[in-house]
Amino acid sequence: MADASRIWTAALIIIGDEILSGRTQDANLAYLAKWLNVQGIRLKEVRVVADEMGAIAQAVNALKPPACDYLFTTGGIGPTHDDITVDAIAAALGVPVVMHPDAEAALRAYYGDRITDARLRMARVPDGAELLPNPVSGAPGIRVGNIFIMAGVPKITQGMLAGLDGILEGGAPMLSRSVGAWIGESAVADLLRETEAAHAGVQIGSYPFWRDGKVGANFVIRSADPHGLATCAAALLDGLRAAGVEPVDGEI
Amino acid sequence: MADASRIWTAALIIIGDEILSGRTQDANLAYLAKWLNVQGIRLKEVRVVADEMGAIAQAVNALKPPACDYLFTTGGIGPTHDDITVDAIAAALGVPVVMHPDAEAALRAYYGDRITDARLRMARVPDGAELLPNPVSGAPGIRVGNIFIMAGVPKITQGMLAGLDGILEGGAPMLSRSVGAWIGESAVADLLRETEAAHAGVQIGSYPFWRDGKVGANFVIRSADPHGLATCAAALLDGLRAAGVEPVDGEI
Repeated sequence: MADASRIWTAALIIIGDEILSGRTQDANLAYLAKWLNVQGIRLKEVRVVADEMGAIAQAVNALKPPACDYLFTTGGIGPTHDDITVDAIAAALGVPVVMHPDAEAALRAYYGDRITDARLRMARVPDGAELLPNPVSGAPGIRVGNIFIMAGVPKITQGMLAGLDGILEGGAPMLSRSVGAWIGESAVADLLRETEAAHAGVQIGSYPFWRDGKVGANFVIRSADPHGLATCAAALLDGLRAAGVEPVDGEI
Repeated sequence: MADASRIWTAALIIIGDEILSGRTQDANLAYLAKWLNVQGIRLKEVRVVADEMGAIAQAVNALKPPACDYLFTTGGIGPTHDDITVDAIAAALGVPVVMHPDAEAALRAYYGDRITDARLRMARVPDGAELLPNPVSGAPGIRVGNIFIMAGVPKITQGMLAGLDGILEGGAPMLSRSVGAWIGESAVADLLRETEAAHAGVQIGSYPFWRDGKVGANFVIRSADPHGLATCAAALLDGLRAAGVEPVDGEI
């Protein structure tokens, strides 16, 4: 019988000098995090590493199953010389790189007589891999066990994730609910701590902001248990009112 | 005599469930990366970890000097129960947490008779730490050797970094120059690889995009050597023209 309380976890490795140099703002982390949450899987750790064989392989070895249930990577699977993700992951797993016949066929169909050796690089996979369909361009993503090797371009990554919707085993999705208030978080720090402590299995995060010259905070309540979430939110709303604050039932 | 070719490196640990849940889009990575580049320091690795003592301490132990020359953290230094960064870093370094008298004085001056135990939490530092001025709100950042503990709120983090401008020892700043072309990167993969190989100390990154239904790519040339950068850019522009592509000298 499945354990309903088992927490399924994932890690993400973002591969690319363009992220580490600040040239490109990553957009895959937040998208993947929300997508995983719907699947009942929690994103546990993210690493951003350079386009270097050693750096990629080290991160893969640290985060691959069983360290997490699932490992995702983004970036470095294109046709150019700086695309070394497949080689680095194969090296980390100790398997050779091979041409995947279906990927080769898909690329030949996509490019026709414009096929080149560089384009065929995108059919290279770690031995034993399956393909993840790419609904946007010719180069597929790659699945090796519970490691998912995806593109860096967000539109392609999102298309690859859509193809995995509902396919990965997960647990109860993490639910969240926000309570906002125009007050400095430090004024209600005791209330937050006590309310969290009184509700097992529930976390409260406090996220302050400054807007229009005023200070405020959103309190995000998270739990996999809908009842615990509702009870905790009600207690926090009551506690804030008792402290003389008029809270908002939702994000400010 | 200083070694002009020494590469100075930094790592960043982003601490926060709000990033891993996808609720908040991180904005500190790209800002810090560009700021470091101006100081002649390269961002080598980033990790995003949960608000958990063990996870934070493990990342600190992996990335603290001498693994990198400098380690920065963002997030988790506020007044609420989920702000555990100081405790986790002190634990990782094996030092006690103490009240910093200047931080306590600053908080008492900022809050006046509204000072509380929760607000005084923000004066807690790992033993031996100095303060980083916070030009936005009352709570300072913290420096322990070459570990810099900063806020999660980007406006505050940016203010703390401004106070460090020109203070950290670094090497030659990494320079970059972009060449754009309305062509699929796979069509010029050989040219990119050969041009990079012909220019030692220069890297070429290839970043494809789809825009207005057309495919294109920006080729980002990076080097700490201005001459190598210029020579490589000229060679790439010539090579693209020879391949029948009209390149743009800059980002598209």
